[in-house]
Amino acid sequence: MGPGSGATQDDMELAYELGKQIAAEGWVLLTGGRDIGVMDAASCGAREAGGLTIGILPGSSRRDSSRYVDIPIVTGMGSARNNINVLSSEVVIGCGTGKGTISEIMLALKAGKPVMVINQSRQAGRFFRSLDDKDLVLCDTPEQVIHEVKSKL
Amino acid sequence: MGPGSGATQDDMELAYELGKQIAAEGWVLLTGGRDIGVMDAASCGAREAGGLTIGILPGSSRRDSSRYVDIPIVTGMGSARNNINVLSSEVVIGCGTGKGTISEIMLALKAGKPVMVINQSRQAGRFFRSLDDKDLVLCDTPEQVIHEVKSKL
Amino acid sequence: MGPGSGATQDDMELAYELGKQIAAEGWVLLTGGRDIGVMDAASCGAREAGGLTIGILPGSSRRDSSRYVDIPIVTGMGSARNNINVLSSEVVIGCGTGKGTISEIMLALKAGKPVMVINQSRQAGRFFRSLDDKDLVLCDTPEQVIHEVKSKL
Amino acid sequence: MGPGSGATQDDMELAYELGKQIAAEGWVLLTGGRDIGVMDAASCGAREAGGLTIGILPGSSRRDSSRYVDIPIVTGMGSARNNINVLSSEVVIGCGTGKGTISEIMLALKAGKPVMVINQSRQAGRFFRSLDDKDLVLCDTPEQVIHEVKSKL
Repeated sequence: MGPGSGATQDDMELAYELGKQIAAEGWVLLTGGRDIGVMDAASCGAREAGGLTIGILPGSSRRDSSRYVDIPIVTGMGSARNNINVLSSEVVIGCGTGKGTISEIMLALKAGKPVMVINQSRQAGRFFRSLDDKDLVLCDTPEQVIHEVKSKL
Repeated sequence: MGPGSGATQDDMELAYELGKQIAAEGWVLLTGGRDIGVMDAASCGAREAGGLTIGILPGSSRRDSSRYVDIPIVTGMGSARNNINVLSSEVVIGCGTGKGTISEIMLALKAGKPVMVINQSRQAGRFFRSLDDKDLVLCDTPEQVIHEVKSKL
Repeated sequence: MGPGSGATQDDMELAYELGKQIAAEGWVLLTGGRDIGVMDAASCGAREAGGLTIGILPGSSRRDSSRYVDIPIVTGMGSARNNINVLSSEVVIGCGTGKGTISEIMLALKAGKPVMVINQSRQAGRFFRSLDDKDLVLCDTPEQVIHEVKSKL
Repeated sequence: MGPGSGATQDDMELAYELGKQIAAEGWVLLTGGRDIGVMDAASCGAREAGGLTIGILPGSSRRDSSRYVDIPIVTGMGSARNNINVLSSEVVIGCGTGKGTISEIMLALKAGKPVMVINQSRQAGRFFRSLDDKDLVLCDTPEQVIHEVKSKL
């Protein structure tokens, strides 16, 4: 999970790398499915590494789907689809800071899912630490994210 | 799409056969994902023929997922997930007559999706014919369903 | 519940009358909220009789709300909101035959809600009768609908 | 919007007071509808001041509804209903810090809604300030919240 149009260059490079490593582990990648930002970059990385990519789309057609998404799920329910992203994932990875992303991280913690975050703003990082939630781990590198995910499976 | 707990033996045998033929064509099977009725039988057939199976689950965990579903999508939204089934499908196949199934067929027609139905009750069949909708085709055999789907792709 | 753009003149006159009688009983009217068809006509009737009207809108803003809706609920989830209409109602009244309406009637019966229908096509009526569901009553007049609703409360 | 089972005594007293003042202004109160925490307290305050209260319930029946809710909307979609809360509100007020509440605040900002927050943790407050979003106002008292809401209508 990560920002769409608000993604930074850093967010997208990390997302691409995470997608690659997720696929290399043989895991399935699930994103918000759109053709922009972290969703697109992570799907691109996973596809290039031979992985399977799912996209939970907010709109009511496939028009906005990333071309790197193998399985587009068309929800037609806008941001309410964030809860489906979270419930359908075994582990949630938040890459970058955005309003939709934070809504997903909060829903994930509420649903008791393990959450790894990377490339958060300083204030978002401090806020996450203040939650003192054992399911939430702040990571510095994609390698650390993958390592933490493995420890949760 | 088809009945869950209310599925007849016929519904399930046809669903199994449809699942097999859908996979044999190289298509992805999407169902309501539960471990009963038409969803389970179709997923079983597709899995046995080496296909990929997606299940759009109504509950908020994977607990009710058919073991033949490869990709469980956990919606947590009950019967409102019927609309996701329909929007995510290129073609909708209704196998058997049930309340949830008819709700999905109606939503599919409303969304302009091609719909093939098989093994409908006499009164459901008459009602479907009375709609006089070019997107809706009543079929007699799985082979005819597959043939009609091909003509729509 | 009833057709939007596909509503007949008859559907709308009956809906207006039903809205009036629902309000006269002191009941709250809940519709799909849009500014067309049965939703609009029923809300108009209820408003004129001094009733409270709720509209469960499919879009992501109030733009399409009937001006006779007092409480617009903005779902942003398209036809998936049909399930909210049904779950939020104590009794469901289907006025006229439409694809969305039939999807709602089916969801209502699945959820165990009492359903009264009026002004159905001959084939829809026959199909409904064939379901042989004690929760579903075919009615001829608004007065009969109101009478049946009373017997269920 | 505010915490349910995690609400503090302070959260609930402020919510009660906000409910009262919202009703006194003649505004309609919309909450998550459950019989606990900020939802219950705000609805109680509004009801006592003669206001109209709407509850957007996560479950699939009215069983969990606050007794101070006049209009229970039954969504059956769990935390995905948070987006309906936000889209249906002209102004969103966040009272207290909770995971669900923060998810709603983020969705509200994403949807371009004015948001007033009160009684946030120190780290949540700092995080909110760091967003530098003109639609988000941190308030100290219910009176200030009401004043800010007025300036937005």
